[in-house]
Amino acid sequence: MSDTVGALLQKVEYPSDLKKLKEEELPQFCQELRQFIIDELSHNPGHLGASLGVVELTVALHYVYDMPSDNIVWDVGHQAYGHKIITGRRTLFHTNRQLGGLCGFPNPAESEYDSFIAGHASNSISAALGLDIASAKLKENKHTVAVIGDAAISGGLAFEGLNNTSFYKNNLLIVLNDNHMAIDTPVGGLSDYLVRLTTSKTYNKWRYRFSQLMQKWGLINEKKKGLMIRRNNSLKAAITNQHNIFEGLNIRYFGPVDGHDVQQLVKILREIKEYEGPKVLHIKTTKGKGFKPAEESAAEWHAPGKFNKETGERIIPPITKDTPPLFQDVFGHTLLELARENEKIIGITPAMPSGCSMSFMMHEMPDRVYDVGISEGHAVTFSAGLAKEGMMPFCNIYSSFMQRAFDNVIHDVALQNLDMVLCLDRAGLVGADGATHHGAFDLAAFRCVPNLTIASPMNVIELRNLMYTASQPGHGPFMIRYPRGKGVLLDWHLPFQTMEVGKGYCVTEGDDVAVLSLGPLGYTVQKAISKAKELGLSVAHYNMLFLKPLDETLLHDVAKKFKKIVTVEDGVIKGGFGSAVLEFLADNGYTGHVVSRVGLPDQFATHGTPDELYHLYGMDADGVLKVIQEINSKMP
Amino acid sequence: MSDTVGALLQKVEYPSDLKKLKEEELPQFCQELRQFIIDELSHNPGHLGASLGVVELTVALHYVYDMPSDNIVWDVGHQAYGHKIITGRRTLFHTNRQLGGLCGFPNPAESEYDSFIAGHASNSISAALGLDIASAKLKENKHTVAVIGDAAISGGLAFEGLNNTSFYKNNLLIVLNDNHMAIDTPVGGLSDYLVRLTTSKTYNKWRYRFSQLMQKWGLINEKKKGLMIRRNNSLKAAITNQHNIFEGLNIRYFGPVDGHDVQQLVKILREIKEYEGPKVLHIKTTKGKGFKPAEESAAEWHAPGKFNKETGERIIPPITKDTPPLFQDVFGHTLLELARENEKIIGITPAMPSGCSMSFMMHEMPDRVYDVGISEGHAVTFSAGLAKEGMMPFCNIYSSFMQRAFDNVIHDVALQNLDMVLCLDRAGLVGADGATHHGAFDLAAFRCVPNLTIASPMNVIELRNLMYTASQPGHGPFMIRYPRGKGVLLDWHLPFQTMEVGKGYCVTEGDDVAVLSLGPLGYTVQKAISKAKELGLSVAHYNMLFLKPLDETLLHDVAKKFKKIVTVEDGVIKGGFGSAVLEFLADNGYTGHVVSRVGLPDQFATHGTPDELYHLYGMDADGVLKVIQEINSKMP
Repeated sequence: MSDTVGALLQKVEYPSDLKKLKEEELPQFCQELRQFIIDELSHNPGHLGASLGVVELTVALHYVYDMPSDNIVWDVGHQAYGHKIITGRRTLFHTNRQLGGLCGFPNPAESEYDSFIAGHASNSISAALGLDIASAKLKENKHTVAVIGDAAISGGLAFEGLNNTSFYKNNLLIVLNDNHMAIDTPVGGLSDYLVRLTTSKTYNKWRYRFSQLMQKWGLINEKKKGLMIRRNNSLKAAITNQHNIFEGLNIRYFGPVDGHDVQQLVKILREIKEYEGPKVLHIKTTKGKGFKPAEESAAEWHAPGKFNKETGERIIPPITKDTPPLFQDVFGHTLLELARENEKIIGITPAMPSGCSMSFMMHEMPDRVYDVGISEGHAVTFSAGLAKEGMMPFCNIYSSFMQRAFDNVIHDVALQNLDMVLCLDRAGLVGADGATHHGAFDLAAFRCVPNLTIASPMNVIELRNLMYTASQPGHGPFMIRYPRGKGVLLDWHLPFQTMEVGKGYCVTEGDDVAVLSLGPLGYTVQKAISKAKELGLSVAHYNMLFLKPLDETLLHDVAKKFKKIVTVEDGVIKGGFGSAVLEFLADNGYTGHVVSRVGLPDQFATHGTPDELYHLYGMDADGVLKVIQEINSKMP
Repeated sequence: MSDTVGALLQKVEYPSDLKKLKEEELPQFCQELRQFIIDELSHNPGHLGASLGVVELTVALHYVYDMPSDNIVWDVGHQAYGHKIITGRRTLFHTNRQLGGLCGFPNPAESEYDSFIAGHASNSISAALGLDIASAKLKENKHTVAVIGDAAISGGLAFEGLNNTSFYKNNLLIVLNDNHMAIDTPVGGLSDYLVRLTTSKTYNKWRYRFSQLMQKWGLINEKKKGLMIRRNNSLKAAITNQHNIFEGLNIRYFGPVDGHDVQQLVKILREIKEYEGPKVLHIKTTKGKGFKPAEESAAEWHAPGKFNKETGERIIPPITKDTPPLFQDVFGHTLLELARENEKIIGITPAMPSGCSMSFMMHEMPDRVYDVGISEGHAVTFSAGLAKEGMMPFCNIYSSFMQRAFDNVIHDVALQNLDMVLCLDRAGLVGADGATHHGAFDLAAFRCVPNLTIASPMNVIELRNLMYTASQPGHGPFMIRYPRGKGVLLDWHLPFQTMEVGKGYCVTEGDDVAVLSLGPLGYTVQKAISKAKELGLSVAHYNMLFLKPLDETLLHDVAKKFKKIVTVEDGVIKGGFGSAVLEFLADNGYTGHVVSRVGLPDQFATHGTPDELYHLYGMDADGVLKVIQEINSKMP
């Protein structure tokens, strides 16, 4: 907040201000915007690399297009900080990702400059196509731009969007922000040459010459209409050895161009802005551009936490022997440990090997881990294929992204009752990433799927033992959900023990109220029970461990002993674990019980620190205590 | 069953028998297999067109590959009748799609010759890649084939599968069964020429010559390794103006070839069988091949019902004025009616315009209906884009296919709280299509999603009025689920009435037991109540209409008046409507109520007629009556 704001940046609150700058001032403006992002993120952590990579693109787009009248859809949205800063939110940017502050992703509820929601990859093309077609139908004649990265474009949804973009009348501009060269082998100077050709008269002449030559050979036929774009693409492909998916899809393709030359970007965007029909502009950028450490180590600086902007050192809280390990690290070490003993274990992750720590296994056994890219549906169905032929796949997908593979779990996994393991990382509240990323729905959504076993460990030792148990064949599809972040146990590396499927246990005996919990919120329950004890209440605590199958023996014991039951889960309560307990009671003829369910309310949870959010939704120790007290005061 | 089985077909129970035939006998064998399918389907309805189109492919695959040791994955599975008939199931084929009989789709639980589940489109490549890689890891060295149609390959999952197939070491053969020319413009004789080239030495020589020429021009560089396949594809593309998505993906491509020349298919398959690396064989087939009416009208004969195999006439039950209309037709007519009055209404369907009767609107207003192909995720996100810009999309997707768009509904629709309509056709049990196609999970899965309104009409008039209500802005995302098939009302075409959102009503007053129903099973409840009345029981009936928001006022009335409550829904009971009622009772402090929930049990429902299935799962009038009697006999 005390950071210096550059002289040009200071003048720009909104894109209308930006347009007053001269073209030759834009490089300087970009430098100031970049510096502002680095300054801010050094003390208020966020997604650094992606936003630095698109500074020039952001400025060029807002210079050429007219927001909020035109629409720009940012895919994923990690990269939209520059966009936020120059669309009226610079002075609020210090609140980014904080409770009550700016959302870390574009969000139409926050600003009319955010054309569409972002967070889950690959939706931008489909959404932008909808915006563009609607705008044409409403005769608004807006321009529509989708900005998508080379990772996100590998998602099936992006392909469906592209496929339809090529088919229906529209004027969409898709900017492919290519910072990994994941799509294409670079072809040196020829590529740059091609771009200039593509938008120039020279190219058109040259294309014509080649076309004539092909005709002379009898290989093409001018009678075939509507194939010109394909032909251009074929031609480029033949010359450059470049292929990308646009070429098969009749979408006009420009590029690749240097995405850090803001003046060239402005020129090209102006030129293609009024071209009819869908088109792709392929730009090459460097993630972390302008901040050397981030340029050199893109993965590390994707979301680096706090850092020293002068020295480039990340400020990492020290790990001592009193720091409990991350659930992620225990997952990663355990998977590797199991894989060393069991040749059938295969790891599958859709683009999250570091995030879920499957990278440990990947480094030691590169041929036994499949990073399938942003393709959650494929990750699950591919795993099902592996399982069907006798392997034991561990497919790890963040809970909120597993929503993408809901049908694959039902149709390809559960229906065939395959022995395999589905690991749902980041289940429950995730914190600063907010509404798009909370793992809020998996318990409720997957509970209705037959044949699934669904477990949630209270701590990392249970996670290990569940993984060990699940890796043994005969259980059918075994889903394990666990949260983002640290557990509470220090000594996690104990020998494996097989767990009985569908078996919970009593953590604390008590007499007045029974609390049934699923997952690590069990520790919150423990705290609440301690506080309750100080208030003279005797509260029992059961860690159910399995949502499915429910431990009915244990539930019978509870239902016989207690009339007052509290359920606690880290997910939406509509249809979740608490609901399963209600069903059990009803199905087994228990009447007269009072049941209170603690969990997320029926709304999209916001962003903030996990502690703030658990407090906000009454899911911290005080919240649970309050529910215990309330239920205790009730009849019967 | 009394049909004549051809002399060659009679000899073939299993593929091992087929292999004993001489190559020159295969055309005759194909003719007999085709005739058998036509004979059987003329009296036992099923998917005719697709299976007739792949007779030669089926025979060639089983002649060249060794099942069940090798794996063949049929995408969607409509086309697998020939496969079933020659893999030990000819004599059972008359039970196809019947309760206790063969499943209408490949199903590993039925036969080891069915390598993977099928039913939902586009999963074959991902699944087959898994099978192939697992087989290599297990050193089984099986061959793996995926057979996918040109419609299914447009699905995002298929693209994700292709993208990964191109990346990881494998020997997958993907047969693209192209019966619509949906992917490519046909290029006449040149295509056939190309195939012969591709698999011949001539082609390789010719390719070399072209390659040399390109080098001479300085346009390619031999140092670049690993690009040979791309170059070949580019070359073919440049020559033929053909492009398909394989060309961008480094997958060796052969074709297109005549898919009805069984001897040529055998020859090609033998040749490419041992080629290393992934490859695509593109075959051209005619849906309904060999049965003239089906060839001429592919859509009509996709699943024609019974027909006269001599005259080619379909045997359609007469529609009289006493025949109630289909829910589908009422949907179609109503949508058109609404669209005539409201310019903002847009229809979106993923490849089901006829199935859901959006075709009515499509014919009158072709520019206002988007058939997006098999792309459920895109259908929803594209609709969200349209809605965001101010249109009123009606996106119609079968309930079981909406599972594919679960995340799109959460992330792109509900989170932005957009005014739009999601219509879930074929919700509840669908009958003969069975486990993959029942709309069993939508109520439970979508109930946990914030901002959604979820309604289920008891009859077609309520469907119309819900559609009318939902088409008015201000309701946020509005989901309407309704079943496959006929309703009960004859006079459906009444003036529109706005319905109050979240409002149910009492259908029948009563004193002993209250039955709460959602959807058309309300008529089943009515029958059960009549029977109960004869037995001296006074049963009240409430049609709740909305799963979300629940009519809490009505539920308070019910909970105050009744201690015995039965809930009835056409979906899995875990987490569904009945569960919502239990939550209401618990949240509002009602104790001492006995609640019985009628719905699908926690297993995948099988195939059979709807009546048989409702009976099987205790969801017919007798089943509901039984539950009413049981609950009535209980205390309190």
